[in-house]
Amino acid sequence: MAPTKKGILERLNAGEIVIGDGGFVFALEKRGYVKAGPWTPEAAAEYPEAVRQLHREFLRAGANIMQTFTFYASDDKLENRGNKLSYTGAQINEAACNLAREVANEGDALVAGGVSQTPSYLSCKSGTEVKAIFKKQLDVFTKKNVDFLIAEYFEHVEEAVWAVEVLKETGKPVAASLCIGPEGDMHGVSPGECAVRLIKAGAQIVGVNCHFDPLTCVKTVKMMKEGVEKAGLKAHYMVQPLAFHTPDCNCQGFIDLPEFPFGLEPRILTRWDMHKYAREAYNAGIRFIGGCCGFEPYHIRAVAEELAPERGFLPAASEKHGLWGAGLEMHTKPWVRARARRDYWESLKPASGRPLCASLSSPDSWGVTRGDAELMQQKEATSMDQLKSLFDRSKTH
Amino acid sequence: MAPTKKGILERLNAGEIVIGDGGFVFALEKRGYVKAGPWTPEAAAEYPEAVRQLHREFLRAGANIMQTFTFYASDDKLENRGNKLSYTGAQINEAACNLAREVANEGDALVAGGVSQTPSYLSCKSGTEVKAIFKKQLDVFTKKNVDFLIAEYFEHVEEAVWAVEVLKETGKPVAASLCIGPEGDMHGVSPGECAVRLIKAGAQIVGVNCHFDPLTCVKTVKMMKEGVEKAGLKAHYMVQPLAFHTPDCNCQGFIDLPEFPFGLEPRILTRWDMHKYAREAYNAGIRFIGGCCGFEPYHIRAVAEELAPERGFLPAASEKHGLWGAGLEMHTKPWVRARARRDYWESLKPASGRPLCASLSSPDSWGVTRGDAELMQQKEATSMDQLKSLFDRSKTH
Amino acid sequence: MAPTKKGILERLNAGEIVIGDGGFVFALEKRGYVKAGPWTPEAAAEYPEAVRQLHREFLRAGANIMQTFTFYASDDKLENRGNKLSYTGAQINEAACNLAREVANEGDALVAGGVSQTPSYLSCKSGTEVKAIFKKQLDVFTKKNVDFLIAEYFEHVEEAVWAVEVLKETGKPVAASLCIGPEGDMHGVSPGECAVRLIKAGAQIVGVNCHFDPLTCVKTVKMMKEGVEKAGLKAHYMVQPLAFHTPDCNCQGFIDLPEFPFGLEPRILTRWDMHKYAREAYNAGIRFIGGCCGFEPYHIRAVAEELAPERGFLPAASEKHGLWGAGLEMHTKPWVRARARRDYWESLKPASGRPLCASLSSPDSWGVTRGDAELMQQKEATSMDQLKSLFDRSKTH
Amino acid sequence: MAPTKKGILERLNAGEIVIGDGGFVFALEKRGYVKAGPWTPEAAAEYPEAVRQLHREFLRAGANIMQTFTFYASDDKLENRGNKLSYTGAQINEAACNLAREVANEGDALVAGGVSQTPSYLSCKSGTEVKAIFKKQLDVFTKKNVDFLIAEYFEHVEEAVWAVEVLKETGKPVAASLCIGPEGDMHGVSPGECAVRLIKAGAQIVGVNCHFDPLTCVKTVKMMKEGVEKAGLKAHYMVQPLAFHTPDCNCQGFIDLPEFPFGLEPRILTRWDMHKYAREAYNAGIRFIGGCCGFEPYHIRAVAEELAPERGFLPAASEKHGLWGAGLEMHTKPWVRARARRDYWESLKPASGRPLCASLSSPDSWGVTRGDAELMQQKEATSMDQLKSLFDRSKTH
Repeated sequence: MAPTKKGILERLNAGEIVIGDGGFVFALEKRGYVKAGPWTPEAAAEYPEAVRQLHREFLRAGANIMQTFTFYASDDKLENRGNKLSYTGAQINEAACNLAREVANEGDALVAGGVSQTPSYLSCKSGTEVKAIFKKQLDVFTKKNVDFLIAEYFEHVEEAVWAVEVLKETGKPVAASLCIGPEGDMHGVSPGECAVRLIKAGAQIVGVNCHFDPLTCVKTVKMMKEGVEKAGLKAHYMVQPLAFHTPDCNCQGFIDLPEFPFGLEPRILTRWDMHKYAREAYNAGIRFIGGCCGFEPYHIRAVAEELAPERGFLPAASEKHGLWGAGLEMHTKPWVRARARRDYWESLKPASGRPLCASLSSPDSWGVTRGDAELMQQKEATSMDQLKSLFDRSKTH
Repeated sequence: MAPTKKGILERLNAGEIVIGDGGFVFALEKRGYVKAGPWTPEAAAEYPEAVRQLHREFLRAGANIMQTFTFYASDDKLENRGNKLSYTGAQINEAACNLAREVANEGDALVAGGVSQTPSYLSCKSGTEVKAIFKKQLDVFTKKNVDFLIAEYFEHVEEAVWAVEVLKETGKPVAASLCIGPEGDMHGVSPGECAVRLIKAGAQIVGVNCHFDPLTCVKTVKMMKEGVEKAGLKAHYMVQPLAFHTPDCNCQGFIDLPEFPFGLEPRILTRWDMHKYAREAYNAGIRFIGGCCGFEPYHIRAVAEELAPERGFLPAASEKHGLWGAGLEMHTKPWVRARARRDYWESLKPASGRPLCASLSSPDSWGVTRGDAELMQQKEATSMDQLKSLFDRSKTH
Repeated sequence: MAPTKKGILERLNAGEIVIGDGGFVFALEKRGYVKAGPWTPEAAAEYPEAVRQLHREFLRAGANIMQTFTFYASDDKLENRGNKLSYTGAQINEAACNLAREVANEGDALVAGGVSQTPSYLSCKSGTEVKAIFKKQLDVFTKKNVDFLIAEYFEHVEEAVWAVEVLKETGKPVAASLCIGPEGDMHGVSPGECAVRLIKAGAQIVGVNCHFDPLTCVKTVKMMKEGVEKAGLKAHYMVQPLAFHTPDCNCQGFIDLPEFPFGLEPRILTRWDMHKYAREAYNAGIRFIGGCCGFEPYHIRAVAEELAPERGFLPAASEKHGLWGAGLEMHTKPWVRARARRDYWESLKPASGRPLCASLSSPDSWGVTRGDAELMQQKEATSMDQLKSLFDRSKTH
Repeated sequence: MAPTKKGILERLNAGEIVIGDGGFVFALEKRGYVKAGPWTPEAAAEYPEAVRQLHREFLRAGANIMQTFTFYASDDKLENRGNKLSYTGAQINEAACNLAREVANEGDALVAGGVSQTPSYLSCKSGTEVKAIFKKQLDVFTKKNVDFLIAEYFEHVEEAVWAVEVLKETGKPVAASLCIGPEGDMHGVSPGECAVRLIKAGAQIVGVNCHFDPLTCVKTVKMMKEGVEKAGLKAHYMVQPLAFHTPDCNCQGFIDLPEFPFGLEPRILTRWDMHKYAREAYNAGIRFIGGCCGFEPYHIRAVAEELAPERGFLPAASEKHGLWGAGLEMHTKPWVRARARRDYWESLKPASGRPLCASLSSPDSWGVTRGDAELMQQKEATSMDQLKSLFDRSKTH
């Protein structure tokens, strides 16, 4: 049935808004199907009904893209995860493709096959070796005929370029998304330069995902766009940020916050924060707008509700919401009914209910909470340059 | 198939810990299947796969109780919810029973049929009329042969007593749970006195659910226990609190917080807060320990992990967690691996990432954000006594 | 010149508002004349111009009472303070009387000679010994003919009663003020009972000072008043609180806060907080309204400005202020001129500018920051009862 | 008597640290002698004992500079202040010189005559007219033979250059200090370029004062230093910041914070914050280190205590303090004695005691709290460029 659907580039070329889904590893971790730490997606094969259900919720919330649940599903990563798995990498990737396609067929959604950064790159394997890793996942995506491909969650543009070079061989549209902020990739390559390299490698869509909060990500994509336009190139743009506020993190994003990954609750964005994000992303000229870690279906629905005037319709799940919480008009208590209006929620600054907690995390606490020489070395690297050289060193040694 | 399972009273009499599930209306609202405002459970009939999946996640997280998703499923409430539904009350209640039973059969869980407070009581219908409402739901529970019954989320002990009187006619065990805090029910009846009345009406298990954070709820159940023991009675105790911090709310609980229901994110408890809750509840002599609004499967898993030494086993979902986040030992970054230990998470005070937000909500803002005379009247009632008389008045007029 | 002035009791009997001064030890510590730790007032003899100037500022701000700067000026305390002083206790007390009288004569103010708690009591000396200590200070007050006497800053009502018994022998009016909160004195005697004992011992004015923030102190005096009235007695009431917010301290007040005494800045009350305090105190029937640690002249001026309608006049220092900051109308920037109005300042919730700091202090940090067994013992005493028994033990051993 | 003292340039040329005093207008506003809004210094003539006392406290705290209390004492400003004064501008300036000299003679301090920005400049008077204004104050400084001159609190470098040109005619050393932050002056001239212009105009010492917190001011002076060195020039550097945390203000500094000037209390720096500031300033190569609004004598003492190792001596007022609060060793309570150590205070993050207040102020609130079109216009200027053009416009119209 997919044949009648417009492809990703047709949609973007026509100026349509394409809404992405949310992050599967965090959502399924909270549901009990993904292990924080390895973050691998074997649940696609082990618990297909749980993964299918999450796809369905994002579809219902307005998503046009079903990303295959293949994050960290490269063979080298699956082998490194500690416990022996009952399924092979190929089985997991296939199961993920089947689930994404099954749900995509239930609505107006495309299937995107995704690859992400590999342990092989971090342990300094060659381009040839790393590309061979991507190729194995790609074979499944080709067999399962996904609609397009995404290389996402890359901290180093070099590895992302390699991924794009592999993916584009299929002839399918390729999107490339880095998990970087305004300071650029872990080698210090600026967002603008990263985007230029990815486009030259063959990506038609570029952007960022994960690691930073929505407004920081939109800002980073804007920097990409400026770099691309300055280089006289053209591209489509995508953004899939965290659903956590991260004003206090450094160039590595939320991984460095003391709260990662089990104390991030107070940072979760409300649906109203998502309205601002969606508008901001749209105004920046980004048309592929989705989410990453922390996004639950109601966050995607908020994006779809904010952009309903431009898209011309509300998502299915709005039957259980109404714009700006209109459903509250049916609440038992009169003062709750009085909250069923836009300006109430737009102006609310939600309290944390935690008077013993600060607003921001202190990097000073690192010294206390980290335990070994390696970490102390990390702590001493207070400047970007120092951090970069540390990373370079860890790569070459 | 249930016959071989021990019943609720057998378990509690034997001193076993019984773990409840989490709140369905909030969890399914975020997934797109429940409308905030009416909060009715028609999804049981409309989207059974979504409800079944949530039951499964709680089962996997360690829950021994599958509550039928029949909150606010009384006919008077379903009629009041604004939109016409495609299913009758009986159909919704039946669908909910089927789903709870199907999943309970997949593990060591019992099915509890639940009734909750009614609009009929709030609009001052007689005991006879209100009891007739409960009777209609009960007919379904009897037909579907649930394992025991819960009367929960009652603000007025009078209505809860009526519910218990109806439920106990089945001969099944009856639990009764009020949504009150230490100040007692909306008529000012103390927790201890409330518990005594419920036991005298026939409840074998008493406690509280919803409206307040875990430690406040445990404190309230302790007050119930003291009252019961002082009266020379005996009972089992249950607690199913919010997963939101509520230090700043008044006698009506989180309904009165300006953030209810769409800005509560910064208040969400972490899994580590749940460890403290589970231990505190256990130490207070409570043996039926579960959750209500805000509880996601990982919160219930944390309760089960904290009480694993007492129960002798970990829940199924711990395969994707490990105690105190042991899974982090497989993380890519060394400083994240260093967080795979209990004392790190126990001492962490998570930042909110929201430097423009206060710790506590201000009731002063009520005047600004509420819109009509009724609310101003509410605002003027600054003392418990005034609040109570307001409520009494609203009942008698 | 004093003869024509009305005495303290004449004023209070006539229903007049009497405004006290602020705390000298904290104000002079910040100016460089008092040492935090011993907190003794030798500056009265050493740097009379500094002490005189502070008296003048409080007089100008509206104070009717010049308390002699004789806090902790008992011989036993002066001997205990570590460094040898160049002046005897008698010289310090006399110098303090002279300064208070000199400035009182410049306006409508009375001189109050003050005694405070002694190390002798804490080291379990007998009533006879402790009274002899007070008697030595009193001899100076009698010679210098102060207008009335205040026994203030007592943590144990027993010692305060002894002080009152000594002071009343002069025939001068006696005020008695404890540094306690709603939980009562360090032996657990309730505020109401404390007040009754002080009145029976001969005090005509009773109240509290120091250790807690204004609204907590007003609440405590209200409890005194209720106790006094219930006992069929009569008295006048005084309150001289901290100018620091202390929502998070225990029964010993701000001494226990981790920020005491060198990190209290973020807790300082604004002048607008003082307006609320003055009104609250007045409404509670308190007519002797002043301040203690943290009060600067502008805080006392705010009290006098709030009560100007009742008193019929503004204080001298309002020439440099204007009600509700009217002086801002002359500011250079238009948006600052727009702040020259009451509702702006009344509704302002001032930010701390410290996003790494929590709202409240955590008693949990005690374990980390305190160093010896004595303190650990203290920390283990988490209940009032335990604290009380600890104190009792430390007294009897 | 001054002849034997080393002059300001001799000291700085010799590499000595020179400690400035604190801000008089804020300190005397709290004492009741300066009116917030006009902020004029007529108290020098009206209440000389109050001004003398403050000079003495700063001297005692370690200050080497007594700035004449002549801020905003230009004739045009004194005329604009609303109320008629009993003293002429010349009388006020003379009285201020006398007081500064009297106290300077009591220790190792120099007298600095100071001029500041004028209403004439803001109302677009010509350079000739503005210079005539400065000349009138300068005549008094010459007659009273101050030791050197400071042009301070200028928002526009153009006006500061004019002031320097007038001051240097006396042949005395000239310091020039702008109230700017890293974004430069109100016309957008960068800190480096500002410093270059001031040096070329004849200033031997350049720096910044007021408007921003210590670390922001040190950062700005560093930018000045870089600009000066890049231009191949040489100068001495001074810094006299606020004693308020201002992480959340824009280019106009604390004037724009909603809390200015009557709700700044929670932002006051502790003495320990001042230790960090003094060290940071010293490390940046700044040798004239003082304070501005918010600085109390104990803040200056903290600067002097931090730099005691370099200077070789403690200030007089340390007799009542001891390094790092050593005086606490004499406290009554053992847990307070345990706080008499450096690491306790260095690691303390003081709580605000205000759980209803946010960490940072929200510029969003401007729209609500400001009242007229002019302010709304201000609000709409969200970028630096817009702000600058607004200011330029207000100057030319």
